[in-house]
Amino acid sequence: MPITILTESELRQCVALDSESIAAVEEAFVALAEGRAVTPPIMRIDIAAHHGEVDVKSAYVEGLDSFAIKVASGFFDNPKRGLPSGSGLMLLWSATVGFPQAALFDNGYLTHVRTGAAGAIAARYLARQEIETVGVIGSGTQARYQVLTLREVRDFRRVRVYSPNPDHLSRYVAEMEEALGLPVEAADGPEAVVRGCDLLVTTTPSTEPIVRAEWLHPGLHITAMGSDSEHKQELEPEVLAAADRLVCDLKSQCFRLGEHHHAREAGLLAPDAQVDELGEIAAGRVPGRTSDSEITLCDLTGVGIQDTAIALLAYQKASALGLGMQLET
Amino acid sequence: MPITILTESELRQCVALDSESIAAVEEAFVALAEGRAVTPPIMRIDIAAHHGEVDVKSAYVEGLDSFAIKVASGFFDNPKRGLPSGSGLMLLWSATVGFPQAALFDNGYLTHVRTGAAGAIAARYLARQEIETVGVIGSGTQARYQVLTLREVRDFRRVRVYSPNPDHLSRYVAEMEEALGLPVEAADGPEAVVRGCDLLVTTTPSTEPIVRAEWLHPGLHITAMGSDSEHKQELEPEVLAAADRLVCDLKSQCFRLGEHHHAREAGLLAPDAQVDELGEIAAGRVPGRTSDSEITLCDLTGVGIQDTAIALLAYQKASALGLGMQLET
Repeated sequence: MPITILTESELRQCVALDSESIAAVEEAFVALAEGRAVTPPIMRIDIAAHHGEVDVKSAYVEGLDSFAIKVASGFFDNPKRGLPSGSGLMLLWSATVGFPQAALFDNGYLTHVRTGAAGAIAARYLARQEIETVGVIGSGTQARYQVLTLREVRDFRRVRVYSPNPDHLSRYVAEMEEALGLPVEAADGPEAVVRGCDLLVTTTPSTEPIVRAEWLHPGLHITAMGSDSEHKQELEPEVLAAADRLVCDLKSQCFRLGEHHHAREAGLLAPDAQVDELGEIAAGRVPGRTSDSEITLCDLTGVGIQDTAIALLAYQKASALGLGMQLET
Repeated sequence: MPITILTESELRQCVALDSESIAAVEEAFVALAEGRAVTPPIMRIDIAAHHGEVDVKSAYVEGLDSFAIKVASGFFDNPKRGLPSGSGLMLLWSATVGFPQAALFDNGYLTHVRTGAAGAIAARYLARQEIETVGVIGSGTQARYQVLTLREVRDFRRVRVYSPNPDHLSRYVAEMEEALGLPVEAADGPEAVVRGCDLLVTTTPSTEPIVRAEWLHPGLHITAMGSDSEHKQELEPEVLAAADRLVCDLKSQCFRLGEHHHAREAGLLAPDAQVDELGEIAAGRVPGRTSDSEITLCDLTGVGIQDTAIALLAYQKASALGLGMQLET
């Protein structure tokens, strides 16, 4: 059977940082909460000699005709050679006969979209309705996608951002002011960002805590995106202890890889502490934010259902538009 | 960077059931034994609603510039619809910068070659030098590939085969007599195969033991290929207890998925029973067969290093031949 081959530029014609992408990812989170998804543990290939790591994620969502297998790489010496640190692709498989249907050579684009979508879903249910300032720690691609996707669920007036790299920081400010048409302010450290925002997104590859609990304030929502492996960490464990509400994308992952993992290991989060999954909120099984003064926190490690949702959306839209090459294998 | 797209017919021009494929796979087993390989656990996606399973395997071998990520599916209702039960593809990734280099749309062909190669390596070190009859239980693609690849390491005079499906059995006999130019005899049951052969290959999707210990005889070598998941089993546990020498491809897999798993669970194989890995023998760390009367057994579940070895060989040969399409992603 032929396989559809799609390139990044074609996929960018099909899928955007918009309400449709968010809806597809949200539906998948609901399926996860309702026990309608099979999510095998992440496969991780470490290539220490080249300071690289490759993750393979997948998930089957009952009722969908296809599921994705997604490969994402991070090679952290690449920028020194003038290369992007990350790359990736997605494969779409038939869930009924097991044949490959499409290879989505997206260079990581779809991962950025589905990750942005998860942040928007977290904000939809956990941020205050009225917010003024979005705080961002980090200045990479996802620091852009998170803020751009947030516009779909919240109005905000400004962005305050910090990055330890001054070049990256000034580029972020210039590019995002233009993209958003809003003021984007460079902060002189993470404290000024956290203290001065209503919604904080952390999106760094940090292996040391950046955000301190003493900077938190009533009504703040935090989406912590960066930690997706055992050694990464953006929040000191006290931040989780101080939050009124803890949410994550998938407990089995976050308790092993995410910020929850560090807080539990430090003994600052009891094994039976209440943690809800994002899909449980989206499915209406547990409430989202319940007051304007709560401090809420969502720990995102990235789940295979997001990849399946976005890959299937991309494939359906590409098919409708007649995009892609049909390869007879 | 462009990605090389290769189809099954192109890959068949590059890689065959020959000594070169066997050598590439054997080198990878040596690297595994010498601790030069990173082999993450298999990722498994079960799709119970469609009687399907999908395995993702990968391994990085130190010193190689690339590594493979391989997807293989088995959907066991497909034959009823006139479709092959299995499919697959391999991705080749740069181990230095983490970008995808090639997509090998082989429809499972390379998996068949690297699996045949592992059987040949097992026979090289574990079968008697002089053998007359190869016994085969099973009549699928791998039942063919195993025997065809064996010719690279042993001369034999005939094949004796059993399959419970008479149509499959007669087709196997006809096709393999022509392919081998040797007599291929259909047996009326598994007992006649086991009692009447010097080297036995079991290659079925059975979930019930087929081979009984009482049929074993001095000098027999068994390569058990079929069991690669928890519920599959071809040998009764007493077969492992009766063998003089136990070998497998990867202990951490075989103790969880292969024939060893069932024998250990049945209490017929002590947790500290001596089991060697095929790569340890290939590396010269432990001996192969040490007498003509030993009963030897090799339990193969399929390891990601085999995929990396064969995918890299295919890519190198395709590049040398100028095959494949260069896709700008």
